Amino acid sequence: MAAAVVWRRGAAWLRSCRGNRELPGVPRARGCAGSREVVPTCERYAVRRLPFGRLADGDVAFFERLMPGRVVTGEEEVKPFNVDWLKSVRGCSQLVLKPQTTAEVSQILRYCHERNLAVNPQGGNTGLVGGSVPVFDEIILSTALMNQIISFDKVSGILVCQAGCVLERLSEYLEEQGFIMPLDLGAKGSCHIGGNVATNAGGLRLLRYGSLRGTVLGLEVVLADGSALDCLTSLRKDNTGYDLKQLFIGSEGTLGVITAVSILCPQKPKAVNVAFLGCQSFAKVLETFTTCRAMLGEILSAYEFMDEKCMELVETHLKLSSPVADSPFYVLIETSGSNSTHDEEKLNSFLEQAMASGLVTDGTVATDEKKIKVLWSLRERITEALTHEGYVYKYDISLPLGKLYELVTDMRARLGQTAKNVVGYGHLGDGNLHLNITAESYSHSLLDAIEPFVYEWTARYSGSISAEHGLGFKKRHFIHYSKPRQAVLLMQQFKAMLDPKGILNPYKTLPSAPEGSTC
Amino acid sequence: MAAAVVWRRGAAWLRSCRGNRELPGVPRARGCAGSREVVPTCERYAVRRLPFGRLADGDVAFFERLMPGRVVTGEEEVKPFNVDWLKSVRGCSQLVLKPQTTAEVSQILRYCHERNLAVNPQGGNTGLVGGSVPVFDEIILSTALMNQIISFDKVSGILVCQAGCVLERLSEYLEEQGFIMPLDLGAKGSCHIGGNVATNAGGLRLLRYGSLRGTVLGLEVVLADGSALDCLTSLRKDNTGYDLKQLFIGSEGTLGVITAVSILCPQKPKAVNVAFLGCQSFAKVLETFTTCRAMLGEILSAYEFMDEKCMELVETHLKLSSPVADSPFYVLIETSGSNSTHDEEKLNSFLEQAMASGLVTDGTVATDEKKIKVLWSLRERITEALTHEGYVYKYDISLPLGKLYELVTDMRARLGQTAKNVVGYGHLGDGNLHLNITAESYSHSLLDAIEPFVYEWTARYSGSISAEHGLGFKKRHFIHYSKPRQAVLLMQQFKAMLDPKGILNPYKTLPSAPEGSTC
Repeated sequence: MAAAVVWRRGAAWLRSCRGNRELPGVPRARGCAGSREVVPTCERYAVRRLPFGRLADGDVAFFERLMPGRVVTGEEEVKPFNVDWLKSVRGCSQLVLKPQTTAEVSQILRYCHERNLAVNPQGGNTGLVGGSVPVFDEIILSTALMNQIISFDKVSGILVCQAGCVLERLSEYLEEQGFIMPLDLGAKGSCHIGGNVATNAGGLRLLRYGSLRGTVLGLEVVLADGSALDCLTSLRKDNTGYDLKQLFIGSEGTLGVITAVSILCPQKPKAVNVAFLGCQSFAKVLETFTTCRAMLGEILSAYEFMDEKCMELVETHLKLSSPVADSPFYVLIETSGSNSTHDEEKLNSFLEQAMASGLVTDGTVATDEKKIKVLWSLRERITEALTHEGYVYKYDISLPLGKLYELVTDMRARLGQTAKNVVGYGHLGDGNLHLNITAESYSHSLLDAIEPFVYEWTARYSGSISAEHGLGFKKRHFIHYSKPRQAVLLMQQFKAMLDPKGILNPYKTLPSAPEGSTC
Repeated sequence: MAAAVVWRRGAAWLRSCRGNRELPGVPRARGCAGSREVVPTCERYAVRRLPFGRLADGDVAFFERLMPGRVVTGEEEVKPFNVDWLKSVRGCSQLVLKPQTTAEVSQILRYCHERNLAVNPQGGNTGLVGGSVPVFDEIILSTALMNQIISFDKVSGILVCQAGCVLERLSEYLEEQGFIMPLDLGAKGSCHIGGNVATNAGGLRLLRYGSLRGTVLGLEVVLADGSALDCLTSLRKDNTGYDLKQLFIGSEGTLGVITAVSILCPQKPKAVNVAFLGCQSFAKVLETFTTCRAMLGEILSAYEFMDEKCMELVETHLKLSSPVADSPFYVLIETSGSNSTHDEEKLNSFLEQAMASGLVTDGTVATDEKKIKVLWSLRERITEALTHEGYVYKYDISLPLGKLYELVTDMRARLGQTAKNVVGYGHLGDGNLHLNITAESYSHSLLDAIEPFVYEWTARYSGSISAEHGLGFKKRHFIHYSKPRQAVLLMQQFKAMLDPKGILNPYKTLPSAPEGSTC
């Protein structure tokens, strides 16, 4: 059987991935054969494999019987599931499972729970904190084939679908019916709605439609022991007992595997306008925000900003061109409303006032869909442009608005020439800064210059060290900068209660419970 | 010491409240002396006092030392805290504590936890399901003196305040600064924001500003053992670990006592309009909703309905008069926007279409604050009018819109002359029906005719048996109609983990864990 042969090769290959730079006496592993371009996570970071079971022939045979043709075992075939989108972390899994139904997910988890096999739930693998790929040899449970729309009600606007539906496909489906998804993000072409919910994705529409905590109405989740939890209601209001689904939103696959989602979708706005503006200082970016929030009111649907370095990067690497005169800061404002005449009147009054008072020095407005997309791409494609720079140190910070850009300036001064670029952009309307630092390649010394400085700085102003990306693998040890000890202990208790063997997405989100803990 | 003497009288009085109609051999208690008008809960319902500690002289002395002058012990003084607003349930507590600070709440709970004394957290005591008053002799922890605003940021719109702030006071404070609270409800003059959050109150603005799950940004909570959990962040986005605060939103004081709230407040709309319309059928009420949602779009802030019986009640008992011709159904539509000219244009277009197409047969529009209040009072004061009828059986149901009023019609047919009135009203835009049945006085036989029929009917259409009121004391045993067994078991595990002695608001929200349960 070909698959089994390939898998045996995988097992040998795995043995090279057990190194740990913090374990005395254990030599550095030499890396996974045949994929030297991304250093295995177990080599780069101090992390010890937990005593989970190891995959055996019988396990693969079991899964092949359960879901024939949807078990991936070849090293090359598994590779794309082992490496994150940023190519910054890499696991050494030998097995990807692609269930199509909740019942299959239940059977997989029941089996893994009994055999003490660790599982890495994976959606579109677009996460930015190393949460979506294995750290060691965790079995990858991909939602890629769980891509069915279950129902859509045009009266209530409630969509029910499987977890593996790609966000952009859902958006296209809804637009045909006169609705939109309540969230939108740069990764929409790949990310799965289940992954969006599991990471409590924020994105570009949060300012207008709120977070997934409000728009997700129901979830179906399979717990670590394989039991299915049906909270897939399609009701706008339901106060019967504790809202269990909230615990799974943003838990990054560590408490259960989301298999289906019920979500409230807004009507498609009849008119959308985008303004792209240049500002001479960050203070003016802020003042423009308060002015436009007052004047645009209920039609404001996005307020994004980027600095001049970001513009340079999208110009250089993606050959996009700026539609306005060079400025230290740029702002993208989107309006969405039900009456184009009213919306344009509101936008024009605002722009007149912003120009007249010197808040804005140059700007352009788009009302047709094509030009709107061009303007949005300047903002949405910054992440992509950054990957062309080499290695990217990514930080996703919530701060009080007045302090938001000071972190970028302080970091730039601190790093001087040791970094290639220090850039800031993000969802200003939500108080969310994306701070990115680039270098030719990864270096411990640059990381040490950035961390924990960036976290201490954020904690000083009561910010969050992860506004929307989550903690995943890379940030879990820094949770204490944003959460008190008592809260982290409680989270560890929840984890221990729902997943006593710790098989679900291990090494992610929470720091390990202290030795001797009762959790 | 006067207080101690009063308390001793209370202790004697308590002994008359231990009856239980389900316990064989135990005679019915004769009721609490001096307050015969409301039957004690322990007499009316089958409920057994759990083996908590009993209040002793030393306990009262301890609390008097901890917070002198803020310990209420006299039978008459305690009485208003023992009886709910509907005068439908009544506890026999002998002690009300009025802490001013989180530290005091911590000390109270630490003491009660050690002594195994049960505690009933109480806000404005406006709950409708018997969740806010004791069932037996639980100590009442009132948030009435925790009424300080901690901060308000005009740039972000984030308010931080103590749990005992009255909703209407917060609204007034915010309006002076150009903001509003994201929720509004009939009980605003009495209810506390902490109670609103603890019960995940919905109310009149949910359609526009979403639920408290999205607008509450942070909470400070004291757990059953007295430890304080500080999740009082003021950030719009924070994905560092599990969102613990969500577990306390809507947990009705059974998992912790909310001591402070951080909440995102919208800007005060510059223009508000209210239309009050008459419709000839419920089908037209629904069609009017889809039409107005499409035409009013982002400025629609409320869509409420009431039937002709409701109008009769407010006319009869409150001497309010209908502003439109008699109709089988009435609709109240509110718009809130940033430009009065635009809003009026949108509203007028909608009204023209609604009248021309026969959806609406009569209507009136208010733009000035005073007339708006008059129109709102017709809808907001239905609850009050109902209390003049005698005993009210209250049901708060979420249903698919198409089925919403069928439950009222079916119930009316079922009960015939045995009920005085069967009325339906509610937040149609949220799929939330308030079904109310009145009778001269409480009777077991009428209750048996209503329940479980009403819950079975709701479950048949996958509705919620409590859209916004919660389960409290009265509905906890019906949770299975809206939640699967697995979900209820998980809730009981959370309760057991966070409050292992079960001292927080016992007999509420969840059915008791099964005997021999590991919870």
